[in-house]
Amino acid sequence: MTNALSHIRGNRHRFVAELGRFIGFPSVSAQRGHAGDVGKCAAWLAGHLREIGLSEVKVVPTPRHPIVYASWRYAPGNPTVLIYGHYDVQPAEPLEEWHSAPFEPIVHGEYLYGRGASDDKGQMFVHVKAIESHLKTTSVLPVNTICLFEGEEEIGSPNLRSFLISEPHVRAADCAVVSDMQIPASDRPAITYALRGALGLELEVRGRQQDLHSGVLGGAIQNPLQVLCEMIARLHDSQGRVCIPGFYHRVRRWDAGERAYMRQMGPSDEQILRSAGATRAWGEHGYTLYERTTIRPALTVTGVVGGYQGPGAKAAIPTGATAKLDFRLVPDQDPREIDRLIREHIVQLTPAGVRSRVRTQMSAKPALIDRSHPVLGAAARAYHRAFGAQAVFLRNGGTIPVVNLIQEVLGIPVVLMGFGLPDDRIHGPNERFHLPNFFRGIETSSVFLAELGASRSVRRMPTVSRASAIPVRVNAGQGERYDH
Amino acid sequence: MTNALSHIRGNRHRFVAELGRFIGFPSVSAQRGHAGDVGKCAAWLAGHLREIGLSEVKVVPTPRHPIVYASWRYAPGNPTVLIYGHYDVQPAEPLEEWHSAPFEPIVHGEYLYGRGASDDKGQMFVHVKAIESHLKTTSVLPVNTICLFEGEEEIGSPNLRSFLISEPHVRAADCAVVSDMQIPASDRPAITYALRGALGLELEVRGRQQDLHSGVLGGAIQNPLQVLCEMIARLHDSQGRVCIPGFYHRVRRWDAGERAYMRQMGPSDEQILRSAGATRAWGEHGYTLYERTTIRPALTVTGVVGGYQGPGAKAAIPTGATAKLDFRLVPDQDPREIDRLIREHIVQLTPAGVRSRVRTQMSAKPALIDRSHPVLGAAARAYHRAFGAQAVFLRNGGTIPVVNLIQEVLGIPVVLMGFGLPDDRIHGPNERFHLPNFFRGIETSSVFLAELGASRSVRRMPTVSRASAIPVRVNAGQGERYDH
Repeated sequence: MTNALSHIRGNRHRFVAELGRFIGFPSVSAQRGHAGDVGKCAAWLAGHLREIGLSEVKVVPTPRHPIVYASWRYAPGNPTVLIYGHYDVQPAEPLEEWHSAPFEPIVHGEYLYGRGASDDKGQMFVHVKAIESHLKTTSVLPVNTICLFEGEEEIGSPNLRSFLISEPHVRAADCAVVSDMQIPASDRPAITYALRGALGLELEVRGRQQDLHSGVLGGAIQNPLQVLCEMIARLHDSQGRVCIPGFYHRVRRWDAGERAYMRQMGPSDEQILRSAGATRAWGEHGYTLYERTTIRPALTVTGVVGGYQGPGAKAAIPTGATAKLDFRLVPDQDPREIDRLIREHIVQLTPAGVRSRVRTQMSAKPALIDRSHPVLGAAARAYHRAFGAQAVFLRNGGTIPVVNLIQEVLGIPVVLMGFGLPDDRIHGPNERFHLPNFFRGIETSSVFLAELGASRSVRRMPTVSRASAIPVRVNAGQGERYDH
Repeated sequence: MTNALSHIRGNRHRFVAELGRFIGFPSVSAQRGHAGDVGKCAAWLAGHLREIGLSEVKVVPTPRHPIVYASWRYAPGNPTVLIYGHYDVQPAEPLEEWHSAPFEPIVHGEYLYGRGASDDKGQMFVHVKAIESHLKTTSVLPVNTICLFEGEEEIGSPNLRSFLISEPHVRAADCAVVSDMQIPASDRPAITYALRGALGLELEVRGRQQDLHSGVLGGAIQNPLQVLCEMIARLHDSQGRVCIPGFYHRVRRWDAGERAYMRQMGPSDEQILRSAGATRAWGEHGYTLYERTTIRPALTVTGVVGGYQGPGAKAAIPTGATAKLDFRLVPDQDPREIDRLIREHIVQLTPAGVRSRVRTQMSAKPALIDRSHPVLGAAARAYHRAFGAQAVFLRNGGTIPVVNLIQEVLGIPVVLMGFGLPDDRIHGPNERFHLPNFFRGIETSSVFLAELGASRSVRRMPTVSRASAIPVRVNAGQGERYDH
């Protein structure tokens, strides 16, 4: 272990340079024009895994973007860890708001800037370098290891389920680790034990087939763009709640014990606002911002396209308009049921004279992980050694569909081991990764692998329910009630 | 006159080919990338005016797009007519909805298809060919004629006022003719005696400087795009009225006589819906569709841009969003006062946590022309001869800012002599011009020029008030009251 940590401390500069090369591939999975870049990124990554000493490396094609897969088996009796990461990234737009080119990463101060620096290339590279630290110093890994790096996370992992089902080695995993989230501060490591689900919809409103002159006919004909805005306006009430009948029906209501734990461990309203660069809160009355973003569902309108988009003006009543709606769901909401409720409500909201259509773009259930599982204990010890601070257990408002998928298909616990920071600007311009966290992260992962190898209790302890939107209770003190 | 009409009938094919060449220039004034094309179009037009026999032709530069100017003086004692048209066109977007390329005009059946075919290249070319019909047959024009063809009508004619003020010959005009509107049907010619004013605004809402992750922060931070949609939704009430305090304060309320005249002469609700390709009316309760689009003001949201616009999804709370608002105004609303009322109201509507900004893009007063003026009689006789049908007097909901400008600066009556049809799809994809109307239009204009030359009463009869947003009364029976 000492050798591995020395190796990490002695190779920091090279690690940053390699991460920079990795970020340089514009592997934007959502944009068809970047499909080739996603493939090149996968090939580079596979090559790099071979370079650090992994032998069973393959690039597995899928109908869209390939999975990079590697495995290392030392002793069949030892536990097996599945390391999951994704090498695809969010679109970089709006490009004009970047201070440097998103795919030409640069170091400024303690940060490496570039699209994917934190989400998720930087965080998954932490584990790659931790593996290197063992292989280059002892030629073995302390635990059986499977690397699964996908290229479709940002588009909802459409081909991951079939890979998990069909790849036999994957089913040998006893636990999984995913690093695709933030910790509160660089001196305050955290393990995420809850994620929100997501439902991504496109709502389109269409009117007449042709644009109509807004002078000649303005005031006489229904305007689909105005209708869309009015529908969007009616999706929230004045209390910041989502106005869809039944939407809150299955939302779990946590008891005072869990809410007190969250208040104690989680960020304050002020901390959340500061991390967002905002001065003022918004949202559902009666909840802290940490609660609003973790145990309460939310709806964000992430895009509207309608009418003339160019410079100047165009005097036309548009033919149609489209909005992108991003719902975040919490236990025990079921994305399929919510999808149905939304569609029914949209039909109710659609006035005569226009047609509306809802398209489902992505869907993921919320996820909860038992805070008392031994693998989380191993993770906490690893964090403590590398960061010199006790790890806290936190919820996160984001969605990592793969977490629920791994729980469902493999029935194993998932350790959500974040190394990002709240101001990493993931999904936004000028995304960055905190380099001290990168280095401490590699040490954490290196120790974590050693801890897993030394632990008997990690093996075959399925405490997470399969195929269920309702995860096991976090602890005995957490009662459940339902909102109405 | 007979020779001129024979010339028109004998050269129809050539006229269509020449109009096709004219439409082929993508003279989109609003788009900076087309500035060169606007200039080329102006040069071609000037050359063509010289070809047909006009001698005093010039291309007058302005800070943006040039004015093409020509004059023909025969006898100082004769009346002078100012023919106004515009050779710039609306943007052609959305391009994918065109069945043929917008700037590669083609003839299908009785129509010529292309951007600007009707608005306004085809209609202004009517007068060019009418001038040719006289010059090529008699070598003279029956009336002193000034041609003023501008390249900035679709962006609000920012440089026309200074040209009208500074060009001495223009001030000699006794009346003006503008052909940039529709007639109800090809067998139902019409003279427009009222146009709505316009106010084009951009409303921008900005939040934080960076996109924020809609998973991590969704539900806790104000979303500028949602705010914009909510503001737009609050600009209309459930009765289809514009919800801005004071907006209807100066709206003239017409008496039963004028409304009966409109009911008798104007299109029915069914006709308006049919021309729009719509099955259902929308708008202000208590008014016919003809009234809603002519004597009542309106607001159309013509575009919204906000958040991610690309394919797939992007999980980010947008930094800002912008809407384009197209207000149509009626007597006696003053665009400057309405602009102020809107800005005050937007401030009221803007919630804490975001900033809003209003930018004025264009502004034009409404226009009214006295139905009893002798030049309108000359126009009616010309229509009758060419179309074989009595012309009706109609209001139009569109805006031709130059009409008010000519009234204000020159104090002369403006004949609004339309040759377009309601289904010409102006401002929309697959714009077209009805060729039988094109040929009859040329005959109408040719006869109109002869009628003006023969009329003593046209000269110096200033019945239109100068520099006033409140035009003269249409007739003695039309009382005025004000809405509140």
